[in-house]
Amino acid sequence: MTQMNGFLYPRTQAGTSSLIPSPPWFYSGDLLTVEYRTDPARVEALLPAPLELAPEDPGAVALIWADWQSCSTDRHELLDPVLSQYKEAFVVVRCSYRGETYSRCVYIWVDSDFAIARGLHQGYPKKLGSIHMTRPHPYGPAPRVAPGGQFGASLAAADRRLAEARITLLEESPTNGFVNAHAMAHNRFVRAIDDPSRFRLDEIIATASASAEGGPAFRARVDGFQLFPAPTEELDRLVPEEIIGGYYRQVGVVWDGGRLLHDNLAAQIPLEVTGHA
Amino acid sequence: MTQMNGFLYPRTQAGTSSLIPSPPWFYSGDLLTVEYRTDPARVEALLPAPLELAPEDPGAVALIWADWQSCSTDRHELLDPVLSQYKEAFVVVRCSYRGETYSRCVYIWVDSDFAIARGLHQGYPKKLGSIHMTRPHPYGPAPRVAPGGQFGASLAAADRRLAEARITLLEESPTNGFVNAHAMAHNRFVRAIDDPSRFRLDEIIATASASAEGGPAFRARVDGFQLFPAPTEELDRLVPEEIIGGYYRQVGVVWDGGRLLHDNLAAQIPLEVTGHA
Amino acid sequence: MTQMNGFLYPRTQAGTSSLIPSPPWFYSGDLLTVEYRTDPARVEALLPAPLELAPEDPGAVALIWADWQSCSTDRHELLDPVLSQYKEAFVVVRCSYRGETYSRCVYIWVDSDFAIARGLHQGYPKKLGSIHMTRPHPYGPAPRVAPGGQFGASLAAADRRLAEARITLLEESPTNGFVNAHAMAHNRFVRAIDDPSRFRLDEIIATASASAEGGPAFRARVDGFQLFPAPTEELDRLVPEEIIGGYYRQVGVVWDGGRLLHDNLAAQIPLEVTGHA
Amino acid sequence: MTQMNGFLYPRTQAGTSSLIPSPPWFYSGDLLTVEYRTDPARVEALLPAPLELAPEDPGAVALIWADWQSCSTDRHELLDPVLSQYKEAFVVVRCSYRGETYSRCVYIWVDSDFAIARGLHQGYPKKLGSIHMTRPHPYGPAPRVAPGGQFGASLAAADRRLAEARITLLEESPTNGFVNAHAMAHNRFVRAIDDPSRFRLDEIIATASASAEGGPAFRARVDGFQLFPAPTEELDRLVPEEIIGGYYRQVGVVWDGGRLLHDNLAAQIPLEVTGHA
Repeated sequence: MTQMNGFLYPRTQAGTSSLIPSPPWFYSGDLLTVEYRTDPARVEALLPAPLELAPEDPGAVALIWADWQSCSTDRHELLDPVLSQYKEAFVVVRCSYRGETYSRCVYIWVDSDFAIARGLHQGYPKKLGSIHMTRPHPYGPAPRVAPGGQFGASLAAADRRLAEARITLLEESPTNGFVNAHAMAHNRFVRAIDDPSRFRLDEIIATASASAEGGPAFRARVDGFQLFPAPTEELDRLVPEEIIGGYYRQVGVVWDGGRLLHDNLAAQIPLEVTGHA
Repeated sequence: MTQMNGFLYPRTQAGTSSLIPSPPWFYSGDLLTVEYRTDPARVEALLPAPLELAPEDPGAVALIWADWQSCSTDRHELLDPVLSQYKEAFVVVRCSYRGETYSRCVYIWVDSDFAIARGLHQGYPKKLGSIHMTRPHPYGPAPRVAPGGQFGASLAAADRRLAEARITLLEESPTNGFVNAHAMAHNRFVRAIDDPSRFRLDEIIATASASAEGGPAFRARVDGFQLFPAPTEELDRLVPEEIIGGYYRQVGVVWDGGRLLHDNLAAQIPLEVTGHA
Repeated sequence: MTQMNGFLYPRTQAGTSSLIPSPPWFYSGDLLTVEYRTDPARVEALLPAPLELAPEDPGAVALIWADWQSCSTDRHELLDPVLSQYKEAFVVVRCSYRGETYSRCVYIWVDSDFAIARGLHQGYPKKLGSIHMTRPHPYGPAPRVAPGGQFGASLAAADRRLAEARITLLEESPTNGFVNAHAMAHNRFVRAIDDPSRFRLDEIIATASASAEGGPAFRARVDGFQLFPAPTEELDRLVPEEIIGGYYRQVGVVWDGGRLLHDNLAAQIPLEVTGHA
Repeated sequence: MTQMNGFLYPRTQAGTSSLIPSPPWFYSGDLLTVEYRTDPARVEALLPAPLELAPEDPGAVALIWADWQSCSTDRHELLDPVLSQYKEAFVVVRCSYRGETYSRCVYIWVDSDFAIARGLHQGYPKKLGSIHMTRPHPYGPAPRVAPGGQFGASLAAADRRLAEARITLLEESPTNGFVNAHAMAHNRFVRAIDDPSRFRLDEIIATASASAEGGPAFRARVDGFQLFPAPTEELDRLVPEEIIGGYYRQVGVVWDGGRLLHDNLAAQIPLEVTGHA
């Protein structure tokens, strides 16, 4: 019998077809963040049991655009950049589980298949979208990462624009926002093939970066921010009632695993297997 | 606590964000098939235990291009066709499990996220690709679905062409090929988030269409067929040693579930839960 | 010195790089049309001198979606369909020149470079867009080209949806609409490289298909039709004040040249060089 | 009659639909260059009369990848970056006209319509392609613009990879290569609509940036460089016989017009209208 290899599918004897390599995964990227408050009931509508609203500022939401280059340990993807470059736009809220506060990505769009694949493992609910974000540059008309630098971003999916933002960097900031500052509490589930009402897997995991480095975070003025309705999306239900602020930061990140928070299929006390996160 | 709805992610209280709806799933499509033989050892390298080579013609392979419109029961996706239209190219072999012959999709590329999503449920190892296939048309220079009609197809991924084919329809045929004629035996697996060497789910399912209708299948002469190498793919290892033939057919298909064949995580005898397949 | 070959650029000695081949050009396609009336002043705002409003129904507009396979005389593009398949959405009005009524394409979006290229020659103002249109199919849930068949279409560009439509076929119709029924009167112009306020070419041409065949046209009920605003587009200024009707037809078309109507750079009487149109 | 506005099509009374704005045009970008020598006869096959081979190093070729953000004077495109961001890969040779050496872009692929449009005005023979280039970044695994930084790039069109390169930056260099160091001598031509063998416009223009700024150019070791054949391209005929070197540079550029070098339709001495270039 054949020993199959490959972190994800397709698994083969040679093991060189896998859509993504084994972790650790490495990233270089630019992050543009808009934080705002919505009605906490709208956040609660996105939290599956046993997750609950965060005790403080439960209606806080972050919409984050990111422009990434990702790779495996040998970095080969960087030199064939169609395998490395992608952009994403994701919506983060906070929640609590057993007295701890977690972040949670409730919606996310990416523009590559390897990004969707990592999302399957990490519990990100990834759809395909068209994402654009002004890129900083040291010359010409593009902005610098410095006070006064102006950045714009847009997200579209299924040929409808879903969100757009414009920010102006103000000053260096001790944080890059607070909504996405915790480990993520994400669901991973698989329905039984013969009875979709039954689950073969139904768990909540915690996932966070193993390490991160970066330049200074910048606090930014939010010059424009709008969510648009679409028949197949609910993003605009997280109505911005109050803009908290904008942020910009360039980062390097390593991801190398998470830990199981809660197994919905287990009768016993939720497993707490310590991991890297 | 919030009751979450939605067949796949993202699950929400309103349940209208899910990337795909609940089955049954409905399809209208065109299928272009090239069947050939490769070294059976190359097929065996893609079969995980306990699957084994098919007893007859174990080296038979089909490369199938398909141009689909898919929808849910209320068919709303058809009228917003960005939600409905996609193309795919997939590689099928045969195998056996407990004395029964199954087909198995070993590689597959699609060009939409909802197609990837259905693949997650059905065990297809979907990557994103650029797929093109001549479309039949009743007027002008495009081919008719009739003897003499000429069709071409190509598959590319990560900016490399992986396969191309050209066929000429010869005559109506009692079959649309034999390699893809069985229920699929597919793996579904999820690695533990804290220890990727452990699986939280590791099963083999059987999946097939619930019903199908279609026009006549046509036997075709294969005028051209080539597989190309790529660093992140192994498709070209299924070297065509002998072309068996080509086929063309227009079909309507319904998919509504499968059954569990084998649970690699279970100590007991493999479950055989009867389902729709 | 080198003799350069190729209908369009890039021209080379070998002549095999040209983005498009020499005419005649052949097409197989599906056309979905919505005709409506807008304020004639909005049409007049798109007619350059010496073109004037059509004497009858001057505010009539057609928005046409088309799903094409195109090729040159040897049809080779059909068998490498990435070179052949494209979709377009275009806006047509009518106008008059020297007592004759012409159609005129005022806005058009396509999704391939060879389509843009033909547009350069034929005077179509082509931009890139994302265009989708329900495709008829004989099996499964997709519609048939018959009374009751339901079709939808969408157009997006620069990540904004610009237009969408839904129609239901009613009955065979003697015409496929009236707005796009005349030869097109199109401008072709090139600005001087050293002084953009001067033109090196500034002419109006007439262009029409050399021949066309097709199935029955169907009159359709317009179930939905909407134009959406965008900062870089003016399509929505052609506000639909009254829907005239919808149409659907499958066609085969040959294009093989046009004729010069008016040379804005010429002091003399406009040339009337007889051609194929 | 209506006064039409807009630099390019579609021209309208309001003038806000034009695919590109009036010059000047501003750019921020990264340039990755591989210079090599091919058989001068292969270069000559791409030079239309009266252009001739450059007297020195006539077989020198540059393949340049560029990752741009472009905008008009008010920079609005930068904040809706789908209107601003694009990549290109282009092939440059040198030639001579009336004793002066010029560069000339013989092949070029871009991934946006506004880039194609500027090419129409500037005489670049632009096709659509899929272009990727490693991006420098200050954090994480992506390279720095410094000795040792490794960059890769690829070009594909019509679902075939056409070229790829990998370089390692060595040291600062006084130049960013020599092949693309001159004003471009480009053709602009339009065929008569009624007789494609006749030209309505057929000229050679010179075009160059009005101004440029940038960081240090880096000389680079070319670790990999390959051209691939394709049925609709001739790029691989410029066979690399000897690699000269690689370069990398970040730049800001302004373009604001060119000048007419030669009018093939004029009987008199070629016009020499002084312009900005």
